[in-house]
Amino acid sequence: MEYRQLTPASPHANRQFFYKVLAGLLFMLALVQLSTAVVSFGLQDKVFWQFLISAVITALTAAILQGKSGPAAQIKKRYLFLLTTLCWLLLCFFAAIPLYLSLPEISLTDAWFETVSAVTTTGSTVLSNLEQLPKGVLFWRAMLQWIGGIGIIVMAIAILPVLKIGGMKLFKTENSDISEKILPRSSSLSSSILLVYLLLTALAMSSYYLGGMSGFDAVTHGMTSVATGGFANYDASFGFFNDKPWLLWLSSLWMFLAALPFVLYVGMLRGDRWILIKDPQVRAFCWVIAITVIWLTLYQHWHNERDWFSALTHSLFNVISVVTTCGYASEDYTLWGNFAFVLFFYLTFSGGCSGSTSGGLKVFRTQLASFLLLKQLKILIHPKAVWTQRYGSKKVDDELLGAVLAFCFIYFATIAALAMVLAMYELDFVTALSSAATAVSNVGPGLGDTVGPAGNFASLPNGAKWWLSVGMLAGRLEILTLLLLFSPMYWRN
Amino acid sequence: MEYRQLTPASPHANRQFFYKVLAGLLFMLALVQLSTAVVSFGLQDKVFWQFLISAVITALTAAILQGKSGPAAQIKKRYLFLLTTLCWLLLCFFAAIPLYLSLPEISLTDAWFETVSAVTTTGSTVLSNLEQLPKGVLFWRAMLQWIGGIGIIVMAIAILPVLKIGGMKLFKTENSDISEKILPRSSSLSSSILLVYLLLTALAMSSYYLGGMSGFDAVTHGMTSVATGGFANYDASFGFFNDKPWLLWLSSLWMFLAALPFVLYVGMLRGDRWILIKDPQVRAFCWVIAITVIWLTLYQHWHNERDWFSALTHSLFNVISVVTTCGYASEDYTLWGNFAFVLFFYLTFSGGCSGSTSGGLKVFRTQLASFLLLKQLKILIHPKAVWTQRYGSKKVDDELLGAVLAFCFIYFATIAALAMVLAMYELDFVTALSSAATAVSNVGPGLGDTVGPAGNFASLPNGAKWWLSVGMLAGRLEILTLLLLFSPMYWRN
Ligand SMILES: [K+]
Ligand SMILES: [K+]
Repeated sequence: MEYRQLTPASPHANRQFFYKVLAGLLFMLALVQLSTAVVSFGLQDKVFWQFLISAVITALTAAILQGKSGPAAQIKKRYLFLLTTLCWLLLCFFAAIPLYLSLPEISLTDAWFETVSAVTTTGSTVLSNLEQLPKGVLFWRAMLQWIGGIGIIVMAIAILPVLKIGGMKLFKTENSDISEKILPRSSSLSSSILLVYLLLTALAMSSYYLGGMSGFDAVTHGMTSVATGGFANYDASFGFFNDKPWLLWLSSLWMFLAALPFVLYVGMLRGDRWILIKDPQVRAFCWVIAITVIWLTLYQHWHNERDWFSALTHSLFNVISVVTTCGYASEDYTLWGNFAFVLFFYLTFSGGCSGSTSGGLKVFRTQLASFLLLKQLKILIHPKAVWTQRYGSKKVDDELLGAVLAFCFIYFATIAALAMVLAMYELDFVTALSSAATAVSNVGPGLGDTVGPAGNFASLPNGAKWWLSVGMLAGRLEILTLLLLFSPMYWRN
Repeated sequence: MEYRQLTPASPHANRQFFYKVLAGLLFMLALVQLSTAVVSFGLQDKVFWQFLISAVITALTAAILQGKSGPAAQIKKRYLFLLTTLCWLLLCFFAAIPLYLSLPEISLTDAWFETVSAVTTTGSTVLSNLEQLPKGVLFWRAMLQWIGGIGIIVMAIAILPVLKIGGMKLFKTENSDISEKILPRSSSLSSSILLVYLLLTALAMSSYYLGGMSGFDAVTHGMTSVATGGFANYDASFGFFNDKPWLLWLSSLWMFLAALPFVLYVGMLRGDRWILIKDPQVRAFCWVIAITVIWLTLYQHWHNERDWFSALTHSLFNVISVVTTCGYASEDYTLWGNFAFVLFFYLTFSGGCSGSTSGGLKVFRTQLASFLLLKQLKILIHPKAVWTQRYGSKKVDDELLGAVLAFCFIYFATIAALAMVLAMYELDFVTALSSAATAVSNVGPGLGDTVGPAGNFASLPNGAKWWLSVGMLAGRLEILTLLLLFSPMYWRN
């Protein structure tokens, strides 16, 4: 993505630019639909035509938009909020078409829910008997998560820091912002990151294949692992591979790596070998995982009398899966005991590092919130003390802390509001609260019998599914992007 | 409480001053124990001696402390944190003695839990068959809540603003702070507030008596209503009076009035007639109640097919009871439906206004947190806009917002941590989460079968009861006061 500062902004130029970006996006989607059609043709699964038709529809729409578009123009920063949201919405809409066409019994609601869940890399599913589905559909779900994954990283690196959402300006690099009024010239960074993403995916796929998965499973699970999406090809989720425990360890590795900041990989490739280990966010993330896994392993060994290896494997896999917001499950961890139940509820909010494919609050926000707490304690004792705090190489100022705290506040408020709406659709307390949390954090599984790791979102009322899809999109857009569009302030002038 | 700046501070003088304050507190408690003994003698309920013995023990301890105390001295502000915490702990300890002596079958844990629950005006109970208990014990529980209530107001008006905890500096008045290093000269304000408290209590008692309660019930429920404590004399809580619905309306009124800022009543008495209506916190509190009650009434009428009057009465009573953190229940509102269940969970956190007897987050903190959110939205659109916000007559600065947000953060973190500890004692998700919330917010009833409005805390494991009592005290001390004492920073120098 390279946009130069060419012509001055006008309402007309803005609209033309919107069309250009959206057309580009849809052309790409049409290409993916076409390649899925080819895969489907190769696998003889009888959904070839559905994908071909979808590709044609998408490409035609893209062509129409392209016809209305003009040259790249200077665009006001505030229009980026609208443009970003439109990109995700349009992507979901056209991505839902092949799903709706391929599965004769699927409702419009379910096709939309499943697609949004895929594109936002949430991974909650309304489909069951996954083993019986056409292979092309399974490939499509995985592909959507994989595309969603790269979209999220690019958004987190190139767009969100410019928009300064929820403390994201902390991650503003020289690449991500030149003037406030033009889109980032992040083309070289973006292509490096794409390379890392491709590399990770290829490694994950190969390792799965060598570990004993079928070629098809290796490809799809490779994509959904690195995208921290969490769609599996089996109703038992990743638990299908429990007889090959090394696959769980491999998958833990790939999910973990996908939840680290991708810019740091680029930094490593450019020669700064220790950049990952020096990063405060990565270090905190490792600590969170280590402590939680050790604690849970001990709990499982003593409380559930499980052997050490099995306790460690499943603790590690499921903790990493939830904390990276991937959302695979190797078994129903909510049955491990009340402590595990509460722990996994909390992990749902955490999320991985910023600038990765994972969702949730992100580790750096929890860290900065703790800084503020320490600062407050210090001020209570020494009211006149001057307080300075660094985060890595950057100075943490009050403005940044305010933005982070406000984000945390709106994050929990969104989940609370969504849970209340879901409760009006007669979802019980645990289901309402956990499915709201899992949607906004883009994790996938909730808690309880209905939406837990052994459950399925199919039985929820249609209204609840629509609201959950709003929650997933809001979470993916870091909430404020979406919320802003509903404020009258935004549309003034 | 009037303390003058007399002698310079020394470690010795500090200790002497501590003894003086604690001795005064225990003398007062001994007096209350003695008067309860008198009441018990009058009611012939056979716990006269137990209360008399307790009074003697408390008075003797007070005398010993008094002997060690010196003249009022200049005391460093930071020692106030320790002194405040010690006051509450000592009060609970000596208040637990008569309970332990009077009830032959009560365990030490239960006596401590019930006392802490009383003094912090939480109102969670481990006692059942309340109707069978000696009247003196019921009187004692109500009396403790009533004392706790006045203690909380005095703390919120005279001490917390000086300590600047969680944005409380917003409520600093010319009375509450002269120098950073002396205790507030708030004697005239304090006595006015005591007057208002006595007046409200007397009005509540009279109205209950005229409404048809027995004299004893009117006195005790009058005290626990105005203290927003929530202890009732019956296992059915306030539901015992459901056949006299006007009592529920009266009780709603007294709980509501007790959750307003008491300084404003003093302002009214001093001539500023409209001060209550002009106050931003009071207005927001009224809106919260009005909207919630209307919504819940409609829900009960349509969803549960309840007649309008009964739907309104019970919605109003239970919403006000939870939102003021009183914690009476007229019936098991968790059975009203999933929407009500989630709603009452949220209401548990809200709390009433600052400077009242209620607990929880307090309305002004929710308001200021929303200000920060609006500010963030504005900044996203107009990055260079200068943002000013007033709260009532005071200007809201970034420092204040930071303090409030940090408080909210630590508040929820405390509840989350407590819930996790409780889950380790094998409390299920709903019980762990809701009892942690209800303890820290000092509400009383939780959710679910065990600790819900129809349940009882007796069946919880002992460890959980001790942790919950820590939570109640932490909530009452606005958390930071207690947390600070556990930070190494506090004890340095
Ligand atoms: K996911
Ligand atoms: K209470």
